[in-house]
Amino acid sequence: MKKVVLLRHGESVWNKENRFTGWTDVDLSEKGVEEAKKAGKTLIENGFSFRKAYTSYLKRAVKTLNQVLDVMDLDWIPVEKTWRLNEKHYGMLQGLNKAETVEQYGEKQVLIWRRSYDIAPDPIDIKDPRSPRLDIRYNELSDSQIPLTESLKETIERIVPYWKDVIAPSMKQYDEIIVAAHGNSLRGIIKYLKNISNEAIIALNLPTAVPYVFEFEDNGTLIKDYFLGDPEEIKKLMDAVANQGKK
Amino acid sequence: MKKVVLLRHGESVWNKENRFTGWTDVDLSEKGVEEAKKAGKTLIENGFSFRKAYTSYLKRAVKTLNQVLDVMDLDWIPVEKTWRLNEKHYGMLQGLNKAETVEQYGEKQVLIWRRSYDIAPDPIDIKDPRSPRLDIRYNELSDSQIPLTESLKETIERIVPYWKDVIAPSMKQYDEIIVAAHGNSLRGIIKYLKNISNEAIIALNLPTAVPYVFEFEDNGTLIKDYFLGDPEEIKKLMDAVANQGKK
Repeated sequence: MKKVVLLRHGESVWNKENRFTGWTDVDLSEKGVEEAKKAGKTLIENGFSFRKAYTSYLKRAVKTLNQVLDVMDLDWIPVEKTWRLNEKHYGMLQGLNKAETVEQYGEKQVLIWRRSYDIAPDPIDIKDPRSPRLDIRYNELSDSQIPLTESLKETIERIVPYWKDVIAPSMKQYDEIIVAAHGNSLRGIIKYLKNISNEAIIALNLPTAVPYVFEFEDNGTLIKDYFLGDPEEIKKLMDAVANQGKK
Repeated sequence: MKKVVLLRHGESVWNKENRFTGWTDVDLSEKGVEEAKKAGKTLIENGFSFRKAYTSYLKRAVKTLNQVLDVMDLDWIPVEKTWRLNEKHYGMLQGLNKAETVEQYGEKQVLIWRRSYDIAPDPIDIKDPRSPRLDIRYNELSDSQIPLTESLKETIERIVPYWKDVIAPSMKQYDEIIVAAHGNSLRGIIKYLKNISNEAIIALNLPTAVPYVFEFEDNGTLIKDYFLGDPEEIKKLMDAVANQGKK
């Protein structure tokens, strides 16, 4: 049997301030660090021991992973970082306080931007200092690959190939794999694996730093998926994420 | 021009206790974490920005690197971990307090074990719980590759191929590279690059967490090498390392 654990990063400084983050490279909050350590302990208690890890180019995911691996005494395992696991790019919303955005555009429009499947927020300008085309870490990519905004659909379209071409094939070599990433990039993987509809995936609110386990047959067939931890607590965390866009 | 920075890990819990560490996977001390952060700040002040990092399978090196990269806002760069950059394996000395070993075996014998070029401490038993052959992280290696003790010569013999085959060729792709490792594994690289004699390399005491810069022509020819930081302070740090084996 093979296991892949999906882990959304712990609370970031901007989660705390309720701002749209996207590709902005904000740090974990102290609470986020503690959440990551707790995830590591939960994984130990449930007998996990990873041999390979994947994460994004964004420090809130990288540092969540580092904390988890350190608690698990797995600092030594290979880690692969990829822009494809980055959060959805929120375009011109990046940096705005979510509550303020709600006041300015209305809750309905914000919910469309946050949660619609194929409508992207307005793009940021190429010359905007926030443009990822000015960020050295994306130099390896062609301009057409670097988004200035993304719908959830577009986010998923750049993640699924990475799952198919890189992560899934690595299950041949490794029995246990961890993927530390973001709410929307993980939605992409979950949608693909569970064949979830566009509408249903929008309603799925992944809690921060709660390990989400996917078990596969050796041939790659999905057997089952489940969160690790107290179900009551997980439900509260999911509700909290769902309420972020509301006033 | 290309630059490779060699960085010895910050103080570990066992450095502090003056114990032979070798392949034992001990953590950084609080001071070690601070030393690593300071190295990151020094590197920023000197205009460095790495695109690729190498480190060992041992957490004191991995975590030193993670701290440096985080201070430098480079959490996203690719990191490659390898057993070949591990510290020299100290055989049966691993875990012993250095001062106690001096009392038991005499300062001369300890200095031979610590500092001779081709004499290794007695090997630990294959069934000893400290044996790396029982450690999952070395499963990828054949038994003959996994040492139960090492002389400095043997340490260097496993490191130089990694420099030649992996790190040096990667200078074609990356202008600035950091290698976070250990006193003796870095000695191997330095000996090779500067063509240092067996006797002289033994006398080289690398200070912890002081960036040691090697500049190369684009064709790979070494131009010069220098430490970053206050020369007085660096000398004190080097003397402190040299005195560790003395009573």
